[in-house]
Amino acid sequence: MASLTSSSQASFLSRPSSNRSSPPLLPTDHHVSLSPRDLPSFSALRASFTRSSSPTLRRSRLLPISAAATDVSLVDTSVNTIRFLAIDAVEKAKSGHPGLPMGCAPMGHILFDEVMQYNPKNPYWFNRDRFILSAGHGCMLQYALLHLAGYDSVREDDLKNFRQWGSRTPGHPENFETPGVEVTTGPLGQGIANAVGLALAEKHLAARFNKPGNEIVDHYTYAILGDGCQMEGIANEACSLAGHWGLGKLIAFYDDNHISIDGDTEIAFTENVETRFQGLGWHVIWVKNGNTGYDEIRAAIKEAKAVKDKPTLIKITTTIGYGSPNKANSYSVHGSALGEKEVDATRKNLGWPYGPFHVPEDVKSHWSRHIPKGAALETEWNAKFADYEKKYPQEAAELKSLITVNLPTGWEKSLPTYTPESPADATRNLSQQCLNALAKVLPGFLGGSADLASSNMTLLKMFGDFQKNAPEERNLRFGVREHSMGAICNGITCHSPGLIPYCATFFVFTDYMRAAIRLSALSQAGVIYVMTHDSIGLGEDGPTHQPIEHVASFRAMPNILMLRPADGTETAGAYKVAVENRKRPSILALSRQKLPHLPGTSVEGVEKGGYVISDNSTGNKPDVILMGTGSELEIAAKAGEKLREEGRAVRVVSLVSWELFDEQSEEYKESVLPSEVSARVSIEAGSTFGWEKMVGSKGKAIGIDSFGASAPADVLYKKFGLTVDAVVAAAKDLC
Amino acid sequence: MASLTSSSQASFLSRPSSNRSSPPLLPTDHHVSLSPRDLPSFSALRASFTRSSSPTLRRSRLLPISAAATDVSLVDTSVNTIRFLAIDAVEKAKSGHPGLPMGCAPMGHILFDEVMQYNPKNPYWFNRDRFILSAGHGCMLQYALLHLAGYDSVREDDLKNFRQWGSRTPGHPENFETPGVEVTTGPLGQGIANAVGLALAEKHLAARFNKPGNEIVDHYTYAILGDGCQMEGIANEACSLAGHWGLGKLIAFYDDNHISIDGDTEIAFTENVETRFQGLGWHVIWVKNGNTGYDEIRAAIKEAKAVKDKPTLIKITTTIGYGSPNKANSYSVHGSALGEKEVDATRKNLGWPYGPFHVPEDVKSHWSRHIPKGAALETEWNAKFADYEKKYPQEAAELKSLITVNLPTGWEKSLPTYTPESPADATRNLSQQCLNALAKVLPGFLGGSADLASSNMTLLKMFGDFQKNAPEERNLRFGVREHSMGAICNGITCHSPGLIPYCATFFVFTDYMRAAIRLSALSQAGVIYVMTHDSIGLGEDGPTHQPIEHVASFRAMPNILMLRPADGTETAGAYKVAVENRKRPSILALSRQKLPHLPGTSVEGVEKGGYVISDNSTGNKPDVILMGTGSELEIAAKAGEKLREEGRAVRVVSLVSWELFDEQSEEYKESVLPSEVSARVSIEAGSTFGWEKMVGSKGKAIGIDSFGASAPADVLYKKFGLTVDAVVAAAKDLC
Repeated sequence: MASLTSSSQASFLSRPSSNRSSPPLLPTDHHVSLSPRDLPSFSALRASFTRSSSPTLRRSRLLPISAAATDVSLVDTSVNTIRFLAIDAVEKAKSGHPGLPMGCAPMGHILFDEVMQYNPKNPYWFNRDRFILSAGHGCMLQYALLHLAGYDSVREDDLKNFRQWGSRTPGHPENFETPGVEVTTGPLGQGIANAVGLALAEKHLAARFNKPGNEIVDHYTYAILGDGCQMEGIANEACSLAGHWGLGKLIAFYDDNHISIDGDTEIAFTENVETRFQGLGWHVIWVKNGNTGYDEIRAAIKEAKAVKDKPTLIKITTTIGYGSPNKANSYSVHGSALGEKEVDATRKNLGWPYGPFHVPEDVKSHWSRHIPKGAALETEWNAKFADYEKKYPQEAAELKSLITVNLPTGWEKSLPTYTPESPADATRNLSQQCLNALAKVLPGFLGGSADLASSNMTLLKMFGDFQKNAPEERNLRFGVREHSMGAICNGITCHSPGLIPYCATFFVFTDYMRAAIRLSALSQAGVIYVMTHDSIGLGEDGPTHQPIEHVASFRAMPNILMLRPADGTETAGAYKVAVENRKRPSILALSRQKLPHLPGTSVEGVEKGGYVISDNSTGNKPDVILMGTGSELEIAAKAGEKLREEGRAVRVVSLVSWELFDEQSEEYKESVLPSEVSARVSIEAGSTFGWEKMVGSKGKAIGIDSFGASAPADVLYKKFGLTVDAVVAAAKDLC
Repeated sequence: MASLTSSSQASFLSRPSSNRSSPPLLPTDHHVSLSPRDLPSFSALRASFTRSSSPTLRRSRLLPISAAATDVSLVDTSVNTIRFLAIDAVEKAKSGHPGLPMGCAPMGHILFDEVMQYNPKNPYWFNRDRFILSAGHGCMLQYALLHLAGYDSVREDDLKNFRQWGSRTPGHPENFETPGVEVTTGPLGQGIANAVGLALAEKHLAARFNKPGNEIVDHYTYAILGDGCQMEGIANEACSLAGHWGLGKLIAFYDDNHISIDGDTEIAFTENVETRFQGLGWHVIWVKNGNTGYDEIRAAIKEAKAVKDKPTLIKITTTIGYGSPNKANSYSVHGSALGEKEVDATRKNLGWPYGPFHVPEDVKSHWSRHIPKGAALETEWNAKFADYEKKYPQEAAELKSLITVNLPTGWEKSLPTYTPESPADATRNLSQQCLNALAKVLPGFLGGSADLASSNMTLLKMFGDFQKNAPEERNLRFGVREHSMGAICNGITCHSPGLIPYCATFFVFTDYMRAAIRLSALSQAGVIYVMTHDSIGLGEDGPTHQPIEHVASFRAMPNILMLRPADGTETAGAYKVAVENRKRPSILALSRQKLPHLPGTSVEGVEKGGYVISDNSTGNKPDVILMGTGSELEIAAKAGEKLREEGRAVRVVSLVSWELFDEQSEEYKESVLPSEVSARVSIEAGSTFGWEKMVGSKGKAIGIDSFGASAPADVLYKKFGLTVDAVVAAAKDLC
């Protein structure tokens, strides 16, 4: 029988257990037999760590369980179905991670079969509970559950094509491949941070739209994270924020299986996770028997739901690879197929008489109710919404626009306009004007900075701070937590496509959040990254704070827009592009220093990525083409003037976004950068890496290929040779 | 009088206090007056947060302190000297961060004047205590302390040149600019992780070299971290490891000033840090009066030193900008000069009659003892070492080689050699052969993986795991903590130049640790990054795990070697380069999949970064040049064979490291890539970004400019067009 936490004592007496005829399951009482915690403690003396696993020891852990009520039998069968779907799919693919699904099948079953509200036939139903498998390598758990629940995205064939080209069941959960998968996980710690974003979105929308008697926004966010996620810094950051924000409807299961890839977690992870989470302001429950203690799990979820002002961590002790007689509770079951022999042994051990990919009829029939149930839930919600719409037509329309991503007609007209006569200003300040203009017209616009709001200029003046007791507000205060900031924004935009999150820090600190930014790009999350202090132009803070290689590094990243606007008009253009691109994140690199508004810049130009801002040549044959981006476009423009004064035909080109320019027609690109003009000079306060593409083999790229230095910005520009004279001299060398 | 922690009650009775005639200091008793914690709590409703600061409230905090013993007067004066050096330097530079030095001056004074052992005239004395300012923006604290202590690197002129071009006092502490600064900090959280690395190095070397009665390695590592550091995930990762490893000689001061750039930490950081650190296995002390409670600080350090098996966090509550009547305890004092008026007011408030940059004679005279004291400490240690050397000549020689970075003669001969007949193998496996060979001959070689040792193939078979009770061992088990892994390795190599740390994860997860890798590059820390699974060749794990833009992104980073070896010989060559480059980190991108050993590869070739592996042309005029790196060099070589069979003159070039190739003479580069040959094809399983530099405007770069997919590796190579046929076809198009 199960060892229970005090919170679940009440339900213990009625706890049913298995009545299956002969499945010799692992014991459930940690007091009388072996749990991971009871096993001999790790000896750290030599590298070749292996879990003690004598046959005697193993055998002693395989006592049968006494039989009881029918529905538990069904739960057992269902749980074993999940286990074997995972085992079989990994076996067929000859790669994958069976260990987690085998250990987490019970909590997975309870969540998807008993607890969560969703509609399998409409994975995008707005008010669904969200489920995030932060330990994404265990994706066969999620695929098995989606399959049983009746999602069309994971049919039997999909399970059989696990990890194959073109399948909907890739090696880690990908939201863009598999409807029903909310976010893209696998890189550890991202999922729990995404879950914080999803829970934040729910709390925010609920606060804005719910009315007394009509809680139109009302769902939970569930996550499963493993030891690996727990070790990652991003998870601690995100969970600190979740505690701070009091995200009471976030319930995270910590799969405490004591095994990571390198073996027992004793070798690297001996902190007290419960204590840490208490420090982070979470409610913490320990389910000691996650393997078969169904009622413990149920009680824990019930308790978690009752705690409204704090997120809950359910630490749930499981056995990785539960059921595998020779591999359970070892790293060998984490990330490899069990192998034919061990699959057979596991079938025998768990009393599973079926062939691969078989779902027993009683399980099939039991789960089949989720299709009508899901439809009913959505219908019920639709009725609720219709009622809401009648009473609150304006709010309903706004909420609808967030669900369906209908940008209000003419929203882009809100963006500020500038002329060359407008006062010079830093693009970070111009960015703030854009942000505040957009916040007025885009109901889904919200965001903030990693403790640099007053430097990044990202505060929305018309709104207050999103806080535990002010969740309707839209300024997010992330603290100095760049990595989780990005991942939380991914979660926000994955919650509802009309939510448009932006987030900000110094451009150089994209290094802290690059994994989250890459996941924005991969998972088609249109987050807007507002990255200020974008070059040595930031001055005295020095090389630790001065980006050099960052623009180049993002130009190399797929499916992301790297925009470096030069003035007010280009900043507005960059925001137009960023807001429109809902399936592709944008990074705006913005200056700390003041910049003039340049003649010739345009929003339309920005939309093309590269365009001519001034030209005194004829017949598409300038003597020289000068190119620049951001703060250096001014230098290029001035150099152009100087060269023209000396009688040259000079074209000046803004290359604000290489990705957008690449997408233009060959004809257009030729009209901007005619191939027969080889005299080309570029200037950009960053690495010249990649500029050969634009300047060609004979051109000259002016930039900085070393680290910066601590000094006032104007001194640095001179010392690093980013000057009008340098451009003029390079141009004269070439033409 | 001071409110004390229980641990410091004993010393309370003898606590002296100021006898200066009229400095109206902030009150020190939190029970009767206002501490940051006592101030009105934050209201989160609107964005424009400002700390309540009515004149009455402010005035009530400026009660004078009753006078007492002389030496406290001196401490007060010294502490105020530190404060005003910081205030004056920031004021002169018109930029910088005065708030932290003003608040942390007391702990800084006590550490550098009373506690730490160092020799100002030899900042590199091996057995010195290490001090890390993790909150690097407060660097004027460190510069003021180094100045008072008599370091030649920070003279009065240097203070006056704070944040100016060419000065030794940059805007954040930089080890490569300022002797006495141990590591480069500023990006938050890095410093505390570096400190963990330094403390690890001490524990490791002590375990290896100390003998009964001769503890030749014996120092502490001190760090100051702020709220910002505490919020960063990297700090939690590193501190979890420090607790796990039981780094008892690591003592970290958490400057609990309740203010970050965006205002009161209440808006984003309300977790219980003490509880979290208890969970992480640290000893925690709270010093409630960090402003003037000198004895509390002393007692806390004493207590921390008495705890041998755990690192200690001293939470020390201070007032940011202490002494500034109108700006203390507000974000406005964090990162801007006080302004002339407020500087005057602060002088008046703290009773400071001196002009800018003045060090009073009694303070000067008091601190002057550190020069002879430091010399004596080093002399004493030298004698100890001489004694050690007599008794343990072998150990002494080994330790010396770690202190001075003398690589053993002929070390490189230990590297394995391969021929084209050697069995095909993954470069990650060949890397393991190199690692194990090097570990036998390099006494400073140690490292490990972020929980992927068995995938990265990084275990040193002759050694066990570095653990709390086995610190002499050399396999580091970082857990899934990539970011702190990099920063810890930076700390290790900054401890002693002969320590050569390597660390490993999947190449794609460099995204998690990029900020630490960049700091390796900037701070000239020769860490070796062993990055396996370096392309879509990893197969089924899918796009979340497949690097695309990573090679390009590191090619753009200054002062780092990006190496992508193609086979065993090139892998050995890459290690030769990596070990030799002690002032520049190396990244080795290694394959998961098996690769043949190619005819023509060579260690010498790798050292040149790019070289010809086969050629059937004459007169440096091939019809076409095929280029590749890593796993694709095989494809280029095969394509070369095929084209030669058809009668073409084909050169095949390995471009294993672009940085090294760039450093070769123009003549050499021309001999490899003759400018008149424009028919060039490159192949690399990653972004083509930047390849224009090598293939020129008319060449063709074959690569992947989208994300990868989940499928077996061979399928992916075909689907993404990374094939011999594709190279052949491209070559034929061009020649």
